[in-house]
This record gives sequence, structure tokens and C-alpha cells, in this order.
Amino acid sequence: MMVHPSVHVPSSCVIGENVVIEEGVTLGENVQVGHHSVLLKGTILEEDIMIGCNSVLGCQPFKNSRIQHENNAEGELYVGKGSRIGNGTIIYSGTKLSREVMVGDLASIRENTVVGQATVIGRNAMVECRTLIGERCLIQTSAYITADMVLEDDVFIGPEVSTSNDKYMVRTSTSLKGPHIKEGASIGNNATLLPGIIIGKNAMIGAGAVVTKDVTDGCTVAGVPARKIP
Amino acid sequence: MMVHPSVHVPSSCVIGENVVIEEGVTLGENVQVGHHSVLLKGTILEEDIMIGCNSVLGCQPFKNSRIQHENNAEGELYVGKGSRIGNGTIIYSGTKLSREVMVGDLASIRENTVVGQATVIGRNAMVECRTLIGERCLIQTSAYITADMVLEDDVFIGPEVSTSNDKYMVRTSTSLKGPHIKEGASIGNNATLLPGIIIGKNAMIGAGAVVTKDVTDGCTVAGVPARKIP
Amino acid sequence: MMVHPSVHVPSSCVIGENVVIEEGVTLGENVQVGHHSVLLKGTILEEDIMIGCNSVLGCQPFKNSRIQHENNAEGELYVGKGSRIGNGTIIYSGTKLSREVMVGDLASIRENTVVGQATVIGRNAMVECRTLIGERCLIQTSAYITADMVLEDDVFIGPEVSTSNDKYMVRTSTSLKGPHIKEGASIGNNATLLPGIIIGKNAMIGAGAVVTKDVTDGCTVAGVPARKIP
Repeated sequence: MMVHPSVHVPSSCVIGENVVIEEGVTLGENVQVGHHSVLLKGTILEEDIMIGCNSVLGCQPFKNSRIQHENNAEGELYVGKGSRIGNGTIIYSGTKLSREVMVGDLASIRENTVVGQATVIGRNAMVECRTLIGERCLIQTSAYITADMVLEDDVFIGPEVSTSNDKYMVRTSTSLKGPHIKEGASIGNNATLLPGIIIGKNAMIGAGAVVTKDVTDGCTVAGVPARKIP
Repeated sequence: MMVHPSVHVPSSCVIGENVVIEEGVTLGENVQVGHHSVLLKGTILEEDIMIGCNSVLGCQPFKNSRIQHENNAEGELYVGKGSRIGNGTIIYSGTKLSREVMVGDLASIRENTVVGQATVIGRNAMVECRTLIGERCLIQTSAYITADMVLEDDVFIGPEVSTSNDKYMVRTSTSLKGPHIKEGASIGNNATLLPGIIIGKNAMIGAGAVVTKDVTDGCTVAGVPARKIP
Repeated sequence: MMVHPSVHVPSSCVIGENVVIEEGVTLGENVQVGHHSVLLKGTILEEDIMIGCNSVLGCQPFKNSRIQHENNAEGELYVGKGSRIGNGTIIYSGTKLSREVMVGDLASIRENTVVGQATVIGRNAMVECRTLIGERCLIQTSAYITADMVLEDDVFIGPEVSTSNDKYMVRTSTSLKGPHIKEGASIGNNATLLPGIIIGKNAMIGAGAVVTKDVTDGCTVAGVPARKIP
């Protein structure tokens, strides 16, 4: 392993082969890091954390003039106590994972996003920047959570769900706004959510539905476009 | 490379830079392993196998109280003769790949799944645990194969197809059951399959269809919800 | 780092830990390569390029008798000046990225594809072989661009969009043909495009639409199957 000399690695930690730990990384007790993983500058890992192989933590966003509203990572990547991070994940600076968060293999989370306690981000799920995700959410495999989105507590997002935050598909300069999904709502697999819509508390969205407008609390919708099921 | 001293590497093998091979790994003749790949404890590779760079083979599942029906990997990862595994793949213990299986880049297969001879798992496809996949299947790029699912022989799964095994989206404790896809059936790109449905022998599912109930043998369906095409 | 002795690394380059650079790789000035990335034989990087960690550049396709129309990589991977490539990407030989291309984390591009100047290939997007992508296109996160497809300039492809090039889902030997998307067209998130269709200039495809036939210039369509919106 290549650990920057300024970094303290507690003796309770288990660090794999070829792991790179850059300057200013903080490691709590009982942290395990799999082979070939990289902890970039300033990443903060609390205690009892497991990280798989080939993961990259603490990336900085690229600058690109063609991406609207791009911002800098605000501060470091913080990973809370008891979290589990899989193999091949990519997680950016400026993001906070609370306690006992689980991030599946090949998932990625951009900068300045907050993930609440005991939430699961499934394998290959992609989470964009500036999104707030509540506690105990289950975001399943290969789901896409766009930027500027809110998921309240206990939300279920099925596999391959797709969301959007740009009504005009970059033709017009507009304020970007992802969906807002309220407490306890469930989104079926491969459903499509349009920008800025609100999914009410405990609402259920059928698999494959295309949701084009707000859904009220407790309501179940399905179809294209999604309509209320009596 | 970091090879555990107890592991025998036949001289016909070609092992890349920084490859990690843990204790108890078995390597057949003519195995090629790309740079930075990791073979974890107990992985069994038969002869004439090629593995790309940055892949991780033989992972153990994380424990997580919030995931239903989680189980342990039953035994080791076994990879049959003549198989090809791409770059950046993640494959778990307790899974068996038969002969001449191909796994594309960035694909992942969970524990206790069986993949039949000459089947192709496309790039970025995600396969969950306890699933049985037959021979000569083609699972295309970015498809999602859920847990507890059966694919018989010669099944075609198009790109970005989505499947589900949980009718109640974790609200009710239920038995999880993925779709059962019979011999020779074809599923069009981005189609959505609901939990527990049966797709008949040689049936065809149109691209983008949402299949909510069983499809009989030889039948072609399309639309949302999917209906028979005369 | 393991750099083949025949490779010249200009002193303006910044090369991370454990980077592998094989024989015949060409590096311009001011190239940055993140930890654990691999530059395979013959890859050509122009100046002012940034590459993240754990990426693999210059792969060769596997041979597989079950994949139609497979071909060899024609020449090397070429990456133009000012391009930005993320973490965990997999890019093949025989492909050309023009100047200022951006490739997001965990994205993959197969052999013999051309990507035009200033185009963005989003995170986890999968691009197949023999596809022509114009200038200033935005291909968003987790989109799937099939083989034998044409995207003209200024095309927008939303997140999780799915395309196909095989009408008969491998049952009949047929010529494969992906969609042709004309200049300035926009495809909404999770839309499904069938093989061989033409999307006209500046056309707009609604989120979740299933497009089964050609769309004329400037037209907006939505639904399943997609119909014109007045």
C-alpha cells in the first residue's frame, strides 16, 4: 500500500494490497479497505467501515463549460460509522454518507449529496450532485437519481428507475429541478419520472409507468402517462 | 503481482501487473489475468480462461439486516473452461459459470447464481443472487436480472431490460419471486417484467413493453400493459 | 508505476500510483493519469488530457462466435487534446475521441467508434462498436447507444435511454442497423428506440416514449407507441 506519511492508520484497520491513501485522509478504528482501492485527499472515514476492492473515494468533479450549474465539491467526502461500500464504486468529495449507509458495487455518487442513515444505494445505481436522500431509503440496482432531487425517509426506488431534472433537454437555460419524492413512497422498476414533479407520501408508482405530473399522497398510479388506479 | 505462496500458477498462465491472488485460489492451464485484477479466496478457474483488467472475482456478500432473504455464498466461485471475463467485472462466491461463458465489462453477478454453457452476460448487466440462467442465453448490455429468477436455454434479453421480484416493494414481507422465462423467449430492449410472471416458450416481448401477466407459448406482446399482437 | 521502457513520459505529465503503461503508448504534454489506471498497447493520448483512477484504455475485443458481425479493432485508441476521462472507464482500441471529449465515470466505449469534438459521454453510459457520434452531443448517465448507429451534431440523449439494432433479436441473420438521430434532436429519459428508425432534425422524443417508426424533422412525439403531440 501507498499511504501518505502524514496519515495515521490505526492498528485495528485492515488495508489490502496496493491501496492508495492520500494526504489528509482520516481513518477511524476497524476500517477495512479492499485491494486496489483509492482514498483521495481529505476523505474522512469513521469507525467500523468496510470498503471493497477497486473503489475510488473522494473524487473532484471535472470542470466542463457545457454542464449547467456545475459547482465545486464543498468540503470533503464523509463516511459515517458502520457504513459498507462495495467494489468498484466512485464517490465524490463534498458528499456525506450518514451512519450505516450501504453502497453497492459499481455505484457512483457525485459531489454535495447527502445520504441518510441506513439507506441502501444499490449496485450500479447512479446518484447525481446536490441531492438529498433521507433515512432508510432503498435505491435498487441500476436506478438513476438525478441532481437537485429530494427523497424523503423510507422511499423505495425500484431497479432501473429513471429521473430527470431538465424539462427542456438543454435547449433553454432553465433552473434544473429533480422530482421530490415524499416519505414512504415507492417507485416500481423502470418507471420514468419527469422533472420537478412531486410524488406524495406513501404513493405507489407502477412498474414501467411514465409519471408526468404530481401524484397525491397515498395514491397509486400506473401506465403511460401514469393514471390513478381506483 | 501478489500471489499467496500456497497458490500454484502454471507456467502457461499470463498474469498482469499488480494482480492479487489470495489463498486457496485454483488456476488451470492457459489462464490470462489482466492488470490489477483480484482473485479472492478460494476462486476456482478452469483452463483456457481470459480475464480483463480491474476485475474482482470471488467477493463475499455484505450482511445487511434490511435486505430480505439474504444468504451466504454457498461455496466458491467456479469459472468453467474457455470462459471470457471482461474488465471491471465483479463476480461473487457461490456462483458457477459453466464452460465458454462470456461476461462483459463492468457486469456483475451476485452469489449462488448458475450461468449455463456458452451464455453471454453483456457489458454492465447486473445479475442478482439465486438465479438460474440456461445455456446459450444472450443477456444484453445494461440489462437487469433480479434474484430468484429462472431463464431457460436460448433466452434473449435485450439491452436495459428490467425485472422485479418484489410485488409489494418491501412494504409487506412476502416471498420474493422473479419472472420465469421459458426456452427460446425474447425480451425487447427496455421492456419491464413484473414479479413472478411466466414468459412462455419462444414468446416475444416488444421493446418498451410492460408485462404484467403471464404470456403463453409462442405469443408476441407489446405495449403498456403488454397485449397480444395478432 | 510500471511504464514500458520504450515509452516516453514527458516531464509535464502527472502519473499516479501503480499506473501501467504498455509498449507503444504515446503520451502528449500535460497528461494526468490517476492511480491504478492502465494504458494498453498503442494507445495515443494527445496533450492536456486528464484520466481518473482505475480506468482501462485501449482494450481489444474478445472473439466470440455467437456475436454477429464482430470485427477487430481497426488501429489504436486515439484521445484528442483537452479530453477528460473519468474513473473506472473502459475504452477500446480502434476508437477515436476528438478534442475536448468528456467521458464520465464507469462509462464504456467499444471499438471502431468515433466521438466528435466537445461531446459528453455521461457516467455509466455504454456505447457499442462502429457508431458515429457527432460534435457537442450530450449523452447522459446510463444511456445505451447500440452498434451501427449514427448521432449527428448537437444531439441530446437523456438518462437511461435505450436503443436497439437487431429487429429479430438474433432469431434471424439480418443486417444490424441502429437508429439514425439527426442534428439537434433530443431524446427524453428512459425512451426506447427501435432498430433502424430515423429521428429527424430538432425532433423531440418524450420521456419514456417507445419510438417504433421514423419521426419527421422538428416533430415532437410521446407515448407508447410514440405519437405526434400537436
